[in-house]
Amino acid sequence: MLALLLLFPLLITAQTRKEGPWWPHPQWGAEDQAGASNWITPEKVLRAARLVTTGKMYELGHVYERGMPLYGDRTFSLVIPAPFPPSRGQNTPTWFMDYFSGEFGQLGTQFDALGHAGMKMKMADGSEKAVFYNGFTREEINSPGGMRALGVEKARPFFTRGILLDIAGAKEVAALESRYEVTLADVRAALARQKMSEESIEPGDAILLNYGWARNWGNPSLYNDSRIGVGQNNGSPGIGLEVARWIAARKASLAGADSCCVEVDPNPDPKLDHPVHQELLMRNGIYILENLDLRSLAAERIYEFLFIFTPTPFKGASGSPGRPLAIR
Amino acid sequence: MLALLLLFPLLITAQTRKEGPWWPHPQWGAEDQAGASNWITPEKVLRAARLVTTGKMYELGHVYERGMPLYGDRTFSLVIPAPFPPSRGQNTPTWFMDYFSGEFGQLGTQFDALGHAGMKMKMADGSEKAVFYNGFTREEINSPGGMRALGVEKARPFFTRGILLDIAGAKEVAALESRYEVTLADVRAALARQKMSEESIEPGDAILLNYGWARNWGNPSLYNDSRIGVGQNNGSPGIGLEVARWIAARKASLAGADSCCVEVDPNPDPKLDHPVHQELLMRNGIYILENLDLRSLAAERIYEFLFIFTPTPFKGASGSPGRPLAIR
Amino acid sequence: MLALLLLFPLLITAQTRKEGPWWPHPQWGAEDQAGASNWITPEKVLRAARLVTTGKMYELGHVYERGMPLYGDRTFSLVIPAPFPPSRGQNTPTWFMDYFSGEFGQLGTQFDALGHAGMKMKMADGSEKAVFYNGFTREEINSPGGMRALGVEKARPFFTRGILLDIAGAKEVAALESRYEVTLADVRAALARQKMSEESIEPGDAILLNYGWARNWGNPSLYNDSRIGVGQNNGSPGIGLEVARWIAARKASLAGADSCCVEVDPNPDPKLDHPVHQELLMRNGIYILENLDLRSLAAERIYEFLFIFTPTPFKGASGSPGRPLAIR
Amino acid sequence: MLALLLLFPLLITAQTRKEGPWWPHPQWGAEDQAGASNWITPEKVLRAARLVTTGKMYELGHVYERGMPLYGDRTFSLVIPAPFPPSRGQNTPTWFMDYFSGEFGQLGTQFDALGHAGMKMKMADGSEKAVFYNGFTREEINSPGGMRALGVEKARPFFTRGILLDIAGAKEVAALESRYEVTLADVRAALARQKMSEESIEPGDAILLNYGWARNWGNPSLYNDSRIGVGQNNGSPGIGLEVARWIAARKASLAGADSCCVEVDPNPDPKLDHPVHQELLMRNGIYILENLDLRSLAAERIYEFLFIFTPTPFKGASGSPGRPLAIR
Repeated sequence: MLALLLLFPLLITAQTRKEGPWWPHPQWGAEDQAGASNWITPEKVLRAARLVTTGKMYELGHVYERGMPLYGDRTFSLVIPAPFPPSRGQNTPTWFMDYFSGEFGQLGTQFDALGHAGMKMKMADGSEKAVFYNGFTREEINSPGGMRALGVEKARPFFTRGILLDIAGAKEVAALESRYEVTLADVRAALARQKMSEESIEPGDAILLNYGWARNWGNPSLYNDSRIGVGQNNGSPGIGLEVARWIAARKASLAGADSCCVEVDPNPDPKLDHPVHQELLMRNGIYILENLDLRSLAAERIYEFLFIFTPTPFKGASGSPGRPLAIR
Repeated sequence: MLALLLLFPLLITAQTRKEGPWWPHPQWGAEDQAGASNWITPEKVLRAARLVTTGKMYELGHVYERGMPLYGDRTFSLVIPAPFPPSRGQNTPTWFMDYFSGEFGQLGTQFDALGHAGMKMKMADGSEKAVFYNGFTREEINSPGGMRALGVEKARPFFTRGILLDIAGAKEVAALESRYEVTLADVRAALARQKMSEESIEPGDAILLNYGWARNWGNPSLYNDSRIGVGQNNGSPGIGLEVARWIAARKASLAGADSCCVEVDPNPDPKLDHPVHQELLMRNGIYILENLDLRSLAAERIYEFLFIFTPTPFKGASGSPGRPLAIR
Repeated sequence: MLALLLLFPLLITAQTRKEGPWWPHPQWGAEDQAGASNWITPEKVLRAARLVTTGKMYELGHVYERGMPLYGDRTFSLVIPAPFPPSRGQNTPTWFMDYFSGEFGQLGTQFDALGHAGMKMKMADGSEKAVFYNGFTREEINSPGGMRALGVEKARPFFTRGILLDIAGAKEVAALESRYEVTLADVRAALARQKMSEESIEPGDAILLNYGWARNWGNPSLYNDSRIGVGQNNGSPGIGLEVARWIAARKASLAGADSCCVEVDPNPDPKLDHPVHQELLMRNGIYILENLDLRSLAAERIYEFLFIFTPTPFKGASGSPGRPLAIR
Repeated sequence: MLALLLLFPLLITAQTRKEGPWWPHPQWGAEDQAGASNWITPEKVLRAARLVTTGKMYELGHVYERGMPLYGDRTFSLVIPAPFPPSRGQNTPTWFMDYFSGEFGQLGTQFDALGHAGMKMKMADGSEKAVFYNGFTREEINSPGGMRALGVEKARPFFTRGILLDIAGAKEVAALESRYEVTLADVRAALARQKMSEESIEPGDAILLNYGWARNWGNPSLYNDSRIGVGQNNGSPGIGLEVARWIAARKASLAGADSCCVEVDPNPDPKLDHPVHQELLMRNGIYILENLDLRSLAAERIYEFLFIFTPTPFKGASGSPGRPLAIR
């Protein structure tokens, strides 16, 4: 039935912000905008800090630079302004500044705010509405200068337990094939190889999936390339609805991976367009972190760690760049 | 003599990247670009993690938004693009994106990369050069699309011990007066009030100074306001060279405060133009974090904590926004 | 009845792109996107060229610069990038570039494309649609990377007869009062003073109205100032629906003036929000040119001239900056 | 000797803003910043207007759009912001806006301001300076928010006689070969074919050269493509110093062509890096207009016409987009 709802959302006629099968969120209420980052309580933070036993730090993101892969028709433009005329100071200071233009929150290693993805659905009164997490509508959110609800500043900082699921490792490949949909069997095989049980995953954990795809970062035409047109890229591997629902059932705070979209792109089912973004962000308030680099964790077989990501709170932005870390 | 050097840098005739009184850095060598973030070793990380005893998190930055105080003639412009035309997916996805333009790394709560501030000085051969940390010259750094050295991506993530020096608290004022230069006596009084010794500060600590200035954040014309012209603002309190050198002697990794500039602005000595930026960034490779909000730490009298700041690695940028945290 | 239609557009139930009281345009057809710039035929161009009898040129626009008045919450940000590292050429070239961010087509002296303003109305089937010139709908136009219809590149260049209506001159004031609505009687008084008849205005003429308002350009808080909040400015004088309909009946190609909006802002009728933009752009396909400087024409009593404006064809933009000229 | 000066500018030791072989400009003086646009006097305007005999208009520029060829590492980014929340007006207005980021004055069909190109040279006192038209130095010009001299707002509008030199036509090719340097013999052959004499060219004329290169506009990788790296493109045909000096001797106000650079790129002499930009802009104050589309003029064999180009006066910008026109 859930599948039907997702495939045919127009069947849902009673889902509003106040009432429906999905929302308001039973635990956090109708006004909640923080979603699954609410799991990161002081107790969770304290337990996560205790995972640090060596102090070794792993950078999980890419450097942002011109020429990196860009999804779709996006812009990354960094300009260093010309220096100011000399100052009057006898200490003769001189400065460098920077100026950036582009889809700030949707470039390179990127974190999706809950307002990034929604769904158009038919309401009980016959009207059509675009609906987002916890029933916020496009009309409630929309504004040219920043989203009025579900912006990235509503997410709490991530300082939580991280779990690596090394899918490529379990399949004994350097990288999954493009357009491969990771199955629940793959996830379970990875857990088994890592000697971890499904039950060991706790609410609020950040689940990171290694597809081996970061090795393609230096090759925009393979990875995904705005320069060959939206939708013209070769695609990338990732999870589908099956694994997304498993992640949601685990009550994860965040799902991340080393591909453009975390989810398989394009979806093997031609009727579906990025359904995992809806399942995680919209349905469950679970954040998505894309274009990670999980190679060092996988190589050192580090599967449990302190995970840190602090979304930059640009008010009303749909996402954030940043510098995700694992610490052991 | 040091004072003379700083006040009259043209006296320095033998300071090059290879040889001089300041550089190459004795510990990290002539090629180092990470500066005092090098102090953050695994041992330091491990000890910092152990400071977490309750899991309570404190946000130390401001939200970034149009209308916030901007230093000088800077731009903060966030645009939400119009939605894409409907997709073909039967799951009817709908999206929000964002687009930002402005001095990315020099707005709001901001972290200065080592290449942000340098000094023009006279070389042994009579020529004049603009020199930055570890002797990198403007010519080595400069490029219209990103600094070629000392960019923000060279800084290591900050996961270290944080120390709050509550200067306003020690002086029993809600906020220091504008243009007040914090003295070493003030620092020592704050330490005494906090029952901390100078010696307890360790290499790699992040030293945060509370001036009580965050209360003015909502009042751009008081705080500092680009809209009334560069240099036309009312100024703000901060440290001068005296305290900057004390911080450098403590081997801090970072100095932060709740004002535009960390240092007093303008400097009471009219011959000096932001000399603390040179002393910390250029001379000592110590990072600067501006426009913090330290009110909750001060109110709860939390003076030692895990400090986290992860500069976003935009390659060749002069700084970074972010979301600094304290955790106890 | 027309008034009723405009005041209560929800009464219109049969206006679609194919059929209705307004469109398709009887002369230019259902596919037309050039609107009243179609009047500028070779014959019109030839007659306009013959108005040049002295070769004297009048600049009718303002220079674009930081600090100029900005309507609403807009951005004007020009950055000069740092120079490139030295080239290998023995001719030692050195360059200056520029980088701009902002609402390109809606800043300073600005030309509105036909897609800039539309109207939400109720369709015969009960649905609500946002409709623009010639019945193009928001759905047909909308795209995050540029309007798919009625963009500024669809306007033909303006090389036509210009007519100045010196309203301030006729009223013997330096400038109209803010929020003053120019009446048809004012227009007729100006014509009489200029010894021109209403009938002498020909299809395709550009009608420019002098309110004396350019004298406030140097005073953003008087003129209109984004810095004091959208809608918080003091307002400005301009025409209302009465004169807009008279202009439409004259079959002008363009209506320009020396205020932010050409039309009175805010409208004296609190139920109306910029109705002249709808009347001119949407109903009649007549372009609008704002923030002119008509002082030199008025001072020299030049009321008929060659008028030139060439909208910069950024594909899908809602407007254009430029450099309007009068030549005698 | 002139060639030597250009090839070895370091030989010039007495060229300053006040005194030298090149400047101050003998006719317009040491303070002039308008250069060869000064030729466009009322008399010139009047004579140019008389060239209009049919009123037929020819568009000489390209539409600006994402995907067009970009020289070097430049950005063209146009964003349509999301609509405002509904207004209170009963006339239910709805709006489209636009937001642009990029090298505004150096994209697509582009006009170079006099401050765009200069030369580093050795001064009499042994120092090295970057010098621009009329001796303005980089220090006099430079500022992060706009050039303080020789910005595009200093150029007067172009309403002048235009001359087409159909080089491709004279050579009976659809397009010149990439990297072909147009010779003076080519220019003279074109004049002869067009039955025009060299002497018929008058001071202030705009000289446009047809290389047949606009046909490649739709093929960025052939035309020139930032996406394959600065300097990695296939190059393009154009004039060299020989023809540039001939144009300067004709006292043209502007030289335009249908390639990226007007001049041959790269220069066949590997020691030279864009020397024609220096010869025209810097030495002679003659403006450059790039990436034209001269196909319709060439096809209709229109060699003399009214030429119009109005640089958009963004204060301190290095260039301008626009919409160049020919009218007959």
